[in-house]
Amino acid sequence: MLSKSQISFIKSLHQKKFRKEHGLFIVEGLKSVTEFIRSAYNVHSVFFTEPAGSKMLNLSKKINSQLISDNELHKISALTNPQQVLALVHIPPVQAVQSQHFSNKLSLMLDGVQDPGNLGTIIRTANWFGFDELLCSTDTVDCYNPKVVQATMGSLSRINVHYLDLTTLLKTTHLPVYGALLEGENIYNTNFSDAGFVILGNEGNGISAETARYITHPFTIPGIGKAESLNVSVSAGIICSELKRKYLK
Amino acid sequence: MLSKSQISFIKSLHQKKFRKEHGLFIVEGLKSVTEFIRSAYNVHSVFFTEPAGSKMLNLSKKINSQLISDNELHKISALTNPQQVLALVHIPPVQAVQSQHFSNKLSLMLDGVQDPGNLGTIIRTANWFGFDELLCSTDTVDCYNPKVVQATMGSLSRINVHYLDLTTLLKTTHLPVYGALLEGENIYNTNFSDAGFVILGNEGNGISAETARYITHPFTIPGIGKAESLNVSVSAGIICSELKRKYLK
Repeated sequence: MLSKSQISFIKSLHQKKFRKEHGLFIVEGLKSVTEFIRSAYNVHSVFFTEPAGSKMLNLSKKINSQLISDNELHKISALTNPQQVLALVHIPPVQAVQSQHFSNKLSLMLDGVQDPGNLGTIIRTANWFGFDELLCSTDTVDCYNPKVVQATMGSLSRINVHYLDLTTLLKTTHLPVYGALLEGENIYNTNFSDAGFVILGNEGNGISAETARYITHPFTIPGIGKAESLNVSVSAGIICSELKRKYLK
Repeated sequence: MLSKSQISFIKSLHQKKFRKEHGLFIVEGLKSVTEFIRSAYNVHSVFFTEPAGSKMLNLSKKINSQLISDNELHKISALTNPQQVLALVHIPPVQAVQSQHFSNKLSLMLDGVQDPGNLGTIIRTANWFGFDELLCSTDTVDCYNPKVVQATMGSLSRINVHYLDLTTLLKTTHLPVYGALLEGENIYNTNFSDAGFVILGNEGNGISAETARYITHPFTIPGIGKAESLNVSVSAGIICSELKRKYLK
């Protein structure tokens, strides 16, 4: 049985402030929790209901695990439909990011993406297309937000997400900086370099003026219909596909 | 001021059963409502709060419009953050769908997509890439669900969504039927015909066995990383992009 203080502690991790204070975040669902246990992440503890029991006991032998009731799971879960297993995972230490580190690859950069579902879906897509890192402006939604974690479908366990002042990095690079804008070179005619940065912006406002100053290659996804814009996670999918299609053919 | 019965009537339209019974659905937000007013849809009534007043009065002169309070808008809105304007729009009559109608174009087909955000995003993307129709299995989420309407960002006003028994249509066609599966021809090497059907499946289970029987050309979006799958709306984006890139270059 969970104590009142355990419940309020775990619930506090739905909020960024407390995730930061305690250095922990929530992962839910048997599949995602399994992937985090098998990853380089350090799992703090696992809470599970009866149906997941045998699977969890095998998986998390060395991890502090606790059988709880459906009702308790509902109290601590961030989901409308909780999924039998909830783990607390340590937030990895922040890694210093230096521009040399990005000198021989194409890196995705997000400037102010706000919707947790969008960020989670972008992490999942980036992982699908073999990116191992994602660079986010400090005002991008927290990747340890439970809704983001959920939408990554386990991919967060396989991709490093860095939060940083994008302009500090862009200021020192000599690589091409591609920016997804409403006007620019047609993406289907753009020859992307094998090394550089590709920036996507906020859902409503696009790339911020400060970041946009460093774009050397504006590009766009042309449309045919009268839709005003594409969803940012769909744009990210089309861009990842275009960046990798020559390697995937 | 809204009467109690008005409030409960509008709120009932959050549910499919009552949308069907009354033949009305909800559209929210100044931009989306404006697009529906200017479209072929028949707008039944508009409710707006003070800040949207002048714009709405100009736009909806011939439409039954009513100024309401923020509090009233909160009561009838399906959004966590209501957006000044809410309209009730007539659901268009169901059009009979015959296979000849699809004989000279590529049509997108959804088989059992369940998440309203995914369907809405797919409608928005299809509209961006110039598709004017979307074919959905009868168990696909209702396109007049307020969360779907919201996610289309107005694109629902420009695209016809048909619900039908997909197999009845597929059974009679001689066109190629492309199915997005986990295994199949590499999408980047697939020469899509100018006429045919392209099927995407349910979030968890993919294309149903009954529908899959009619696939003549299975294809897949190859990945590089260890992600297990792509989100269906991201897949739809990549597929639309691949189908149209030759026309957009």
